[in-house]
Amino acid sequence: MATKGAIVSAAKALASPRSSSASTFFSRQLHATPGSKKIVGVFYKANEYAKLNPNFLGCEENALGIREWLESQGHKYIVTDDKEGPNCELEKHIEDMHVLITTPFHPAYVTAERIKKAKNLQLLLTAGIGSDHIDLKAAAAAGLTVAEVTGSNTVSVAEDELMRILILVRNFVPGYQQVVNGEWKVAAISHRAYDLEGKTVGTVGAGRIGKLLMQRLRPFNCNILYHDRIKADDEFEKETGAKFEEDLDKMLPKCDVVVVNTPLTEKTRGMFDKERISKLKKGVLIVNNARGAIMDTQAVVDACNSGHIAGYSGDVWNPQPAPKDHPWRYMPNHAMTPHTSGTTIDGQLRYAAGTKDMLDRYFKGEDFPAENYIVKEGKLASQYQ
Amino acid sequence: MATKGAIVSAAKALASPRSSSASTFFSRQLHATPGSKKIVGVFYKANEYAKLNPNFLGCEENALGIREWLESQGHKYIVTDDKEGPNCELEKHIEDMHVLITTPFHPAYVTAERIKKAKNLQLLLTAGIGSDHIDLKAAAAAGLTVAEVTGSNTVSVAEDELMRILILVRNFVPGYQQVVNGEWKVAAISHRAYDLEGKTVGTVGAGRIGKLLMQRLRPFNCNILYHDRIKADDEFEKETGAKFEEDLDKMLPKCDVVVVNTPLTEKTRGMFDKERISKLKKGVLIVNNARGAIMDTQAVVDACNSGHIAGYSGDVWNPQPAPKDHPWRYMPNHAMTPHTSGTTIDGQLRYAAGTKDMLDRYFKGEDFPAENYIVKEGKLASQYQ
Repeated sequence: MATKGAIVSAAKALASPRSSSASTFFSRQLHATPGSKKIVGVFYKANEYAKLNPNFLGCEENALGIREWLESQGHKYIVTDDKEGPNCELEKHIEDMHVLITTPFHPAYVTAERIKKAKNLQLLLTAGIGSDHIDLKAAAAAGLTVAEVTGSNTVSVAEDELMRILILVRNFVPGYQQVVNGEWKVAAISHRAYDLEGKTVGTVGAGRIGKLLMQRLRPFNCNILYHDRIKADDEFEKETGAKFEEDLDKMLPKCDVVVVNTPLTEKTRGMFDKERISKLKKGVLIVNNARGAIMDTQAVVDACNSGHIAGYSGDVWNPQPAPKDHPWRYMPNHAMTPHTSGTTIDGQLRYAAGTKDMLDRYFKGEDFPAENYIVKEGKLASQYQ
Repeated sequence: MATKGAIVSAAKALASPRSSSASTFFSRQLHATPGSKKIVGVFYKANEYAKLNPNFLGCEENALGIREWLESQGHKYIVTDDKEGPNCELEKHIEDMHVLITTPFHPAYVTAERIKKAKNLQLLLTAGIGSDHIDLKAAAAAGLTVAEVTGSNTVSVAEDELMRILILVRNFVPGYQQVVNGEWKVAAISHRAYDLEGKTVGTVGAGRIGKLLMQRLRPFNCNILYHDRIKADDEFEKETGAKFEEDLDKMLPKCDVVVVNTPLTEKTRGMFDKERISKLKKGVLIVNNARGAIMDTQAVVDACNSGHIAGYSGDVWNPQPAPKDHPWRYMPNHAMTPHTSGTTIDGQLRYAAGTKDMLDRYFKGEDFPAENYIVKEGKLASQYQ
């Protein structure tokens, strides 16, 4: 909380006393200065998969499908997947790049040190949702603008969460493994397989994704609880049957399934630690497509080993890519995947279009859609304050 | 169709001219004669899993939780999982058993030969739904009663189908495999992962399970089509947005996802053969929790190998248990499990209670709930005619 306060103070100091949309002394300008820009994109490499689908825009090779458009306007577009260490390709371009585009699926970590080095940098774009790979305090202090394509893959992630709830509740993975291993042992699956109907599902966070999830849960006839800073409107509660829980720690022990739908902030980092997990129902199932660092990694492993957590599924890790020896790969009763829930082909088409739209506005000196801003010329968006 | 006609004729001949509820000359009586009955139950063995969950009623060891109740009334209750071949445990009891209880998850195949041998047999009960493991023609000709616990696990199966749709559309399995194998290759997953939103899902059959599935699909904003003998009422169509397709072969080529929700009958056996599969959309996804024999086994394998079918998931096989060398275990892009979707703990509690209720009514000479009958004293229920 102390750190969060400091960010807000720093941002406010930079933004005032002039109006919030005007540049401050420290700002490196939201609107592009005229002339050719150097734009760097960091995306996951697709290799042999790049050509298999014409809509597969989110990989390094296809680079959001904007190369021709950028180059026809005289801009330079560098694309790489090589993002770590002092000798990586990204490092070579930090000093003179104007814009950095990256995704949550293969994040280029933008540290204070990199920001200091990036003298020309004006704009940090997330092709997708989430900007926790960026040191927002340093970005704000440097007067940068940070924006994402809000809403571009919320449906993708919400669908994926519902899939994971069902996979855990119904105990899918051991059944699949039996098939592949040539086995047939129904009892090993069915002694701990349940229906979702009648169970209690609670979401920590009820933003866009949390709300889409609750709408999709509605026909399953389960008890839906949600915790958020803000109570949803009556119409939403009536539509979904979801019940607001003001106190997170009063909600959690009621849940058979806990879904994490909160951004990673200083407040939520490590919020599911040993103590909080110990207060969850024994046999709880956890779905986390939000961010890996919201969980205490080892506390999750220990609780899966003891059986206190009966199943854990998500596609977010800390760090990403997860190293070969990441313990979540080997803990019992997990249904983990690499970070892909937001990078479906449908999601890629939406976040590529949204990124192109923001670049176009940047070149033309127009504002972005208001909901896309994380940091606008050094001022943090309200949800990050 | 010829065979189906023969069944109906045989059944009608047995049932008439006396009223359909009265016993015929050939009937072995729906209502129990007084005295001790020999009841045989065939269930999957649970071994070390039997004691892990007090509600795990569907296994051999826990035997629906009705042993004490049956024995306290003087009945004999034999339970086994050994159901195949001339020397199996089941064969030892066929000659003098009055009632056989079995499940679709570990079916005791009741052939004409076994029925002929079973001189005392009166009642065949399915703990769960589906009686295609029984030669219904022979059962009807012998005047037996065949009944299931209709509705006991429809929710369980419908939930499982929605899980499988999402697993295929979103390409879950390769992601999970990467995690377990220590890999991180987002592109190998995301080049063929999609959102369900906006896709067309068609169900072949819109009985109880098909309807529950369509209700659960509603908030996903996909196009829902259904084929059945009977159009659903306007209220259902309005609630779900589902559209009736009278002609199956006109519906199928429109579907991105085909879900099979029809019982196995002589009409549906092998209905998805090479020719019908060739008319499906290239890249179609198929979910089949109905019965394995509705598909031509090799045609499915060939279409998965060619990529015409881009994903196949289900928990039903032909035969069951699936042998180690069943080709569906090894075809690409499958997400198969052993037959478990209807045997969740919640489903077990419901079908154990429903089976006990029918036994109680049988001992007391009362009718069963009408919807439970497959064959009533030699007469086939209308949906099997």
